[in-house]
Amino acid sequence: MGTSGSPQPWELQSSEHLQDYDVYRVRRDRVRSPRDGSLHDFHVVDAPDGVTVLALTPEHELVLVEQYRHGIRQLSLETPSGILEEGEDPLDAALRELEEETGFRAEEPRSLGTLDLNPSWETTRVHVVLATGARRAGDEDPGEDTRVRCVATDEVRERVREGAIRSATVVAALHLFWAAGGGAGVATGAR
Amino acid sequence: MGTSGSPQPWELQSSEHLQDYDVYRVRRDRVRSPRDGSLHDFHVVDAPDGVTVLALTPEHELVLVEQYRHGIRQLSLETPSGILEEGEDPLDAALRELEEETGFRAEEPRSLGTLDLNPSWETTRVHVVLATGARRAGDEDPGEDTRVRCVATDEVRERVREGAIRSATVVAALHLFWAAGGGAGVATGAR
Repeated sequence: MGTSGSPQPWELQSSEHLQDYDVYRVRRDRVRSPRDGSLHDFHVVDAPDGVTVLALTPEHELVLVEQYRHGIRQLSLETPSGILEEGEDPLDAALRELEEETGFRAEEPRSLGTLDLNPSWETTRVHVVLATGARRAGDEDPGEDTRVRCVATDEVRERVREGAIRSATVVAALHLFWAAGGGAGVATGAR
Repeated sequence: MGTSGSPQPWELQSSEHLQDYDVYRVRRDRVRSPRDGSLHDFHVVDAPDGVTVLALTPEHELVLVEQYRHGIRQLSLETPSGILEEGEDPLDAALRELEEETGFRAEEPRSLGTLDLNPSWETTRVHVVLATGARRAGDEDPGEDTRVRCVATDEVRERVREGAIRSATVVAALHLFWAAGGGAGVATGAR
C-alpha cells in the first residue's frame, strides 16, 4: 500500500460556533473539496481530548469501573477515563483520573498510543496510558455512582469477546495494551 | 468479579429535543440518580446506529478506505463504515456500504459483535460485520473523495501498532476480527 494518490486534505473556508453543551460544543465548518471545489458544511462536535488508563495491579488485574452511562442507558464496564485539563500532560491526567475515579494509585505511566474517538465529526483524541503497580490508596469517589472492578487480564479478554465490554475506545485501548505485550513483564519488571 | 452491588440505572424524568445537525441530533435528558435522588441534565448526541465491515479478499487482505476526515482534519485509514437505513439489517447494510464506498462485493456476512461509539453521551451502536470473498465489482464512488486500499491482515496489525490506523471504532472492530481468529479459515473454508 503506497501513499501515492492519497486524497488531499479539504480546505477550511469558515467556521461558526453554534452551541455549548457542557462537555462539548458544536460548530459549523464550511470546507472546500480539493477534488471538485464544491463547498460542504460539517457540524463538528468539539470536545477536549481525553485519556483512558490501563492500570495493572501486581496481581496482573486491570482496574476497571462499572457505571451507568446515559448515552446507551445501560451499565458499562470500562477502563477509567476522563478529560484532559487545560495544558495537562496525558500521563499525569491518567494517574489523576485513576485516583479520582477508583481510589487507586499507580506508577510509571507510559503512552500506548492515541485514538480518534470519531474522526468523521468529532475532534476528540484519546490518549491510552499504561500504568503499573496499581494499589488502593483511598476510597472510590463517593460523588460518583460507580463500582471498581479488578479483573484478571485473561478475564478482561473474555469479557470483550462475550460483549460485556463494548465501548469502542475501551476495546481499542485494550487492543493496544495486548499488542504491546499485555503488560507482560511490566508489573514485575522482568522484561 | 460478581455483579452484586452493581450501580443501578438512572431514571429518565424528561427529554427535550434541542437541535438537528444533519447526521445527529442533540437532546437534553433530565435523569435522577438512584443513589441520592439528585437530578442531572445530560446533553445526548442521538445518531443512528452504524455498521463497519471487515471485508476479506481471497488473498487475505482487508479492504480499507483512506479518506479525509474533517473531525480530526487529517487523512484516516478505516474499514468501510456507514449508517444503517431505517429498518435495515446490519448484515445487508455492511454489504451495501462496502459496495457503495469501494466498489467491492463480498459474501457470507456475519456479525462479530457490536460496539458503543461513546457510551457517555452518544446513543450510537456500531455493528461489526465480517464478510469474505471480497472482489472488485465496480468503480469506487466517484462522488466520494476516497481511495481504496487492500492491505494484508498482518500489515493491518502493524498499521495499528504504529498509529497509522487510529479510529477507536476501527481498532476495536479489528480487535474483534482478530479475537475471532482473524478470518483464519473463513476465506478458504478450511476451518
